[in-house]
Amino acid sequence: MLIYILMLIIVLAAIAYVCWNYLNIMKMDEGTENMIDLAATIRSGARTFVKTEFKTVAVVVVILAIILSLFIEKTAGLTFIIGALMSSFVCIMGMRSATYANVRTANKARETKSIGETVKVALCGGSISGLAVQAFGMLGLILLLLIWGVDHESVGGGFLTKIQGVNASLMRISTYSLGCSLVAMFNRVAGGNYTKAADISSDILAKLRHDMPEDDSRVPNVIADFIGDNVNDIAGNCSDLLESFVATMAASIMIAVSIFNDPAFPIAEGYYNAMTRFPILLAGLGLLGCLLGLGYAQFKKMSDNPSKELDLATWISAGITVVLGFFAALIMFAGKGSVAELKNAGFKLGFISPWICAVLGIASGVLIGIITEYYTSTDYKPTKELAEMATEGEAFVITKGDAIGSRSCLIPILLIGIALFVSGLVCGTYGIAIAALGMLAFVGATVSIDAFGPIADNAGGIAEACHLDPDVRVITDKLDAVGNTTAAIGKGFAIGSAAFATVSLIVAYVENCNFGDLSKIALDFADYVVVAGGIIGGALVEYFSAMLTDNTIESAKLMADEGDKQLTPEVLAGEKTPDYNRMIELAAKQALKKMLVPSVLAMVIPVIGGFLFGVDFVGGLLIGATIVAIPRAIFMGNSGGAFDNAKKYIESGALEGHGKGSAAHKAAVTGDTVGDTRKDVVGVALDIFIKTMSTVANTLVSVFRNITLIR
Amino acid sequence: MLIYILMLIIVLAAIAYVCWNYLNIMKMDEGTENMIDLAATIRSGARTFVKTEFKTVAVVVVILAIILSLFIEKTAGLTFIIGALMSSFVCIMGMRSATYANVRTANKARETKSIGETVKVALCGGSISGLAVQAFGMLGLILLLLIWGVDHESVGGGFLTKIQGVNASLMRISTYSLGCSLVAMFNRVAGGNYTKAADISSDILAKLRHDMPEDDSRVPNVIADFIGDNVNDIAGNCSDLLESFVATMAASIMIAVSIFNDPAFPIAEGYYNAMTRFPILLAGLGLLGCLLGLGYAQFKKMSDNPSKELDLATWISAGITVVLGFFAALIMFAGKGSVAELKNAGFKLGFISPWICAVLGIASGVLIGIITEYYTSTDYKPTKELAEMATEGEAFVITKGDAIGSRSCLIPILLIGIALFVSGLVCGTYGIAIAALGMLAFVGATVSIDAFGPIADNAGGIAEACHLDPDVRVITDKLDAVGNTTAAIGKGFAIGSAAFATVSLIVAYVENCNFGDLSKIALDFADYVVVAGGIIGGALVEYFSAMLTDNTIESAKLMADEGDKQLTPEVLAGEKTPDYNRMIELAAKQALKKMLVPSVLAMVIPVIGGFLFGVDFVGGLLIGATIVAIPRAIFMGNSGGAFDNAKKYIESGALEGHGKGSAAHKAAVTGDTVGDTRKDVVGVALDIFIKTMSTVANTLVSVFRNITLIR
Repeated sequence: MLIYILMLIIVLAAIAYVCWNYLNIMKMDEGTENMIDLAATIRSGARTFVKTEFKTVAVVVVILAIILSLFIEKTAGLTFIIGALMSSFVCIMGMRSATYANVRTANKARETKSIGETVKVALCGGSISGLAVQAFGMLGLILLLLIWGVDHESVGGGFLTKIQGVNASLMRISTYSLGCSLVAMFNRVAGGNYTKAADISSDILAKLRHDMPEDDSRVPNVIADFIGDNVNDIAGNCSDLLESFVATMAASIMIAVSIFNDPAFPIAEGYYNAMTRFPILLAGLGLLGCLLGLGYAQFKKMSDNPSKELDLATWISAGITVVLGFFAALIMFAGKGSVAELKNAGFKLGFISPWICAVLGIASGVLIGIITEYYTSTDYKPTKELAEMATEGEAFVITKGDAIGSRSCLIPILLIGIALFVSGLVCGTYGIAIAALGMLAFVGATVSIDAFGPIADNAGGIAEACHLDPDVRVITDKLDAVGNTTAAIGKGFAIGSAAFATVSLIVAYVENCNFGDLSKIALDFADYVVVAGGIIGGALVEYFSAMLTDNTIESAKLMADEGDKQLTPEVLAGEKTPDYNRMIELAAKQALKKMLVPSVLAMVIPVIGGFLFGVDFVGGLLIGATIVAIPRAIFMGNSGGAFDNAKKYIESGALEGHGKGSAAHKAAVTGDTVGDTRKDVVGVALDIFIKTMSTVANTLVSVFRNITLIR
Repeated sequence: MLIYILMLIIVLAAIAYVCWNYLNIMKMDEGTENMIDLAATIRSGARTFVKTEFKTVAVVVVILAIILSLFIEKTAGLTFIIGALMSSFVCIMGMRSATYANVRTANKARETKSIGETVKVALCGGSISGLAVQAFGMLGLILLLLIWGVDHESVGGGFLTKIQGVNASLMRISTYSLGCSLVAMFNRVAGGNYTKAADISSDILAKLRHDMPEDDSRVPNVIADFIGDNVNDIAGNCSDLLESFVATMAASIMIAVSIFNDPAFPIAEGYYNAMTRFPILLAGLGLLGCLLGLGYAQFKKMSDNPSKELDLATWISAGITVVLGFFAALIMFAGKGSVAELKNAGFKLGFISPWICAVLGIASGVLIGIITEYYTSTDYKPTKELAEMATEGEAFVITKGDAIGSRSCLIPILLIGIALFVSGLVCGTYGIAIAALGMLAFVGATVSIDAFGPIADNAGGIAEACHLDPDVRVITDKLDAVGNTTAAIGKGFAIGSAAFATVSLIVAYVENCNFGDLSKIALDFADYVVVAGGIIGGALVEYFSAMLTDNTIESAKLMADEGDKQLTPEVLAGEKTPDYNRMIELAAKQALKKMLVPSVLAMVIPVIGGFLFGVDFVGGLLIGATIVAIPRAIFMGNSGGAFDNAKKYIESGALEGHGKGSAAHKAAVTGDTVGDTRKDVVGVALDIFIKTMSTVANTLVSVFRNITLIR
């Protein structure tokens, strides 16, 4: 109890800091009338979209909550709703603050002409999203634990049915996570479609069809594009990372319960309590680290090197998490029982074991970020080579980009593999979950830095669209460049953490399968059921990718054609404003139309698979989907990032003789457009696809065990 | 014994038929002097390349054979060499016959102006490859079984070491398969690089840089392109399918031995004999079916609808295999012991069980072919839509092609999954291997039809390059179109059968792990070692793809630049022949230079992984690699096929207002170039990558069990 309450205090402190930042942002000046108008349009467009989206989401949430409470566990409907609410609230808050911060960032650049001051505004906006993700993710879970606790024997049941082996405690935790997952799924799928349909269509109109600069205010799709950044890169990203964070905490607790319940390896009640509470403690101390790291960046005098300042904030957050994590392990595990009992729990190196896992998770998170930067930044060989390849035409650019994407999978996955291997070696299955949680324990900082990107991007867009001074644009461009790199790193981190989260969910799934008196399962790949599940799981990832890709190009085509109609000679001459709202509505309509099927797919597949072919089949599905989705997501993110930056490299004039408008530039634009769908639609949705499937499976595993039609 | 001898007779009959066909082809007229010269150049280029390649291969084979004999099992070096020899011999024979048949096909069209007669020549050439694959694959194995038999207790050892749990019988079978695998690996990697570097570079020169028709004889790279078709699509394909075929026979026998050795489920010696011999019987009867099917096509009067005729040959072969397979199961398994014992072996439905599995394999093989055709032929929606998307420019074509590739994975993999599931349900692990073998039991027919494609393609190229009558070109174009479809189907079949073969190899691997008195392993995905192996295995597939892709575009760029230098004004005016040999040498040099690293990678990874982290880790690697490689290979094959045919669709004028030379056509050419590397280099190499890794692991599993450094 004491730990929960202490952590609750940290959470509330973080929420207070978030609110204070929010008010600070609100107080700032929005700038010229033009800027105020544009910002208002962006804000209202984003709000309208999210409001409409959440109406659909609410219906789905309520229906599922009723089903959960009726059939699975009475309280599960409620915890499911709490999860969905937390996630929705964070999204809305992140998006609102970003749509306030973007114009104020532009204005600060206009007023002060200082990079440092401008960075502070964007970072202040970003930190609202980041800290909210971690604070609200914890808030719901702590409340749930304070009210109901974690009882390893708690047997539950729905209002209508009583299913053998349902543990109400675990069911509450996993439905809480499921609520977060559901919102994230809808957000990512709809947001991806929205933002890329708008972005690709305005690129086509501006660069290919009418030879205008990017973000030109004559292009009717351009405001929808600004909105899209907030919808996907802020709201989508917040809910995605919140989901990963909550899922890993949930998985750690579920695994702890299963370990305690294994009669073959008895452990003391003291260890049980420590193991179920340590995840919350670690996450809370990580939040404290983020508060300090971000607070430091915000209160110190900021230099003109934003990259360095942002890195420093991350390092401080991660460093504090590492140091405090050690004391957390010491306090929780040292001397609470015999060494033999710790060994029974899988701790090979005594109380320090979970801390080692957490550090491994943190280290691999940071390293994956660095590798991602290597493969996608114009400072390094791969992207430079890609830009040079553009001189050979479109086909070579695409093929080279494919090769870069594929090649970039190896080291991040090796890092994850090594971290998993060592964690398992040092601390058993619990260690795997703690490593995942370690990676996510400073998620507040990473999301803050990540959210900096779209805010800076939007600020630049506003500066361009409102024809601000060129030296303002120089500042926002600098921020945008930094933001691009942080976004790429953020994607790497999101994928890495999703991979980790999913693996720990799969481990929890297997442990859950064995809960109670039912026979143990092993996800044995020599078993035909598991093999069949595995390869089908892999195919589903490809199918899901195909659906999202097709939907995006369909919407983009529609929007480009519609936008073209509005580019009348008067609009082109700048004598008339195009009908931005028409395009904003179209983007939203398309995104919402295309949202339901892919999102529901991820939820329905494990359910059907489980009822038809049982737990082993679903286990195979999860593994197959995860093993395929991890490299695919990295491929999509990094090839997309490299394409994007190779184009920017050429535009910056770094490739002698092949500047803007050259054949090489056209080829690079093609690459960028191909990469847009990959990195911002498919790649980011794949994480949430595997996490959602796993969370659904974890929730329903006790049902499948009892009811399986075939086999 | 009797069964082996009977099957040997069928094999010898097939070889006799192959020789007779070979002589028949040789006797035919080669046509005009121009044609004779060109054919001789192609032939000598192909021979030189293969000769040089096989010199390197021979060195590797001898070194490995020595290691195997010294350390693993005395006789294993010999059987390894036999496998490599069989595979090499089939490649050389296939390639020689194809390089004789291509010019004769062109000449037959010139002389007779009859489609039916021309098809017969190409099919006769193709059937040499196809029947040789099946006959020689069986020949080596039958000889090996006749000499040494399959002893379930046979304990072996190398000249220098004696490793616990090595079964000499199984080691011979698996090293035989490994020999085939090694040759296939080198062939695919080198062949892919050769053919696509030549193809892409001549496309760039002809279509993009100098606006000439494809296959124009002024392009210096064009002869290298013709050679490439033989090197990759004939030699590479033959060794690939031979490998799959041998590996599934080997896996079936290995699994049968393990089942017999499991003391928990005793079965009679009679069943053991039946289970080890049934695979050979099924394969032999399949070969008989192919002989009859292909013979029928060759001796009947051929209509002018080649598609129908080729389909009929496949159907006859498959049909006979199904019917005879039933009697094989009846003879081998009916009444050889008690029903309970059959149940112990996993046969749930009595003697008919393995037959059901074989039929499932055959049916899914045929269905996968049909699905592949749907996604890649211009007769159906996907490719038509792709062609229409070309009007929107390069980026949309690529993105749409990506979506088609990803979407096309689902149904083939579902089919494989269902076949695996039902086979496992009906006939246990043995059933999975038999289903795989069923799919490959009429491999002679599928390879024959597949080899028809490159022969027809080459014939068309020769007709174009030698400026034959336009009505000759009409005939060869028709054959080429049919050949394109059969090639796409063949790729689908190759991938499907590789997937099946690999799964049965993994099952055999697990069974092999448990051979002897050592503790049982289960490839449990809740185990951190297996998980780490799994995700790393997936990443390796991406890395392997990246290496091959990079190598190909590097070689293609080099060849395009070199070719461009030779396109002097005189050559362009047709006053001087370009230096074809310079390009042929360059293609060969590049291919051989780029061959070693990727090929060796596939062999070395499981070895290093096994010694460092043990059998579970390697098991994880195999599963991860397989689950990722199956959809990736389908994606590569089908997106590439769809790109190719979308381009052809536009060239045929089917897209109104967007003919040859239009912007849409340029976009489609870009797609085709991107697809070239995918379908002919990466996709086809991925099958062999996973098969080689699995075969290596199977060979060395008994060593890993005894020596593992970490863990």
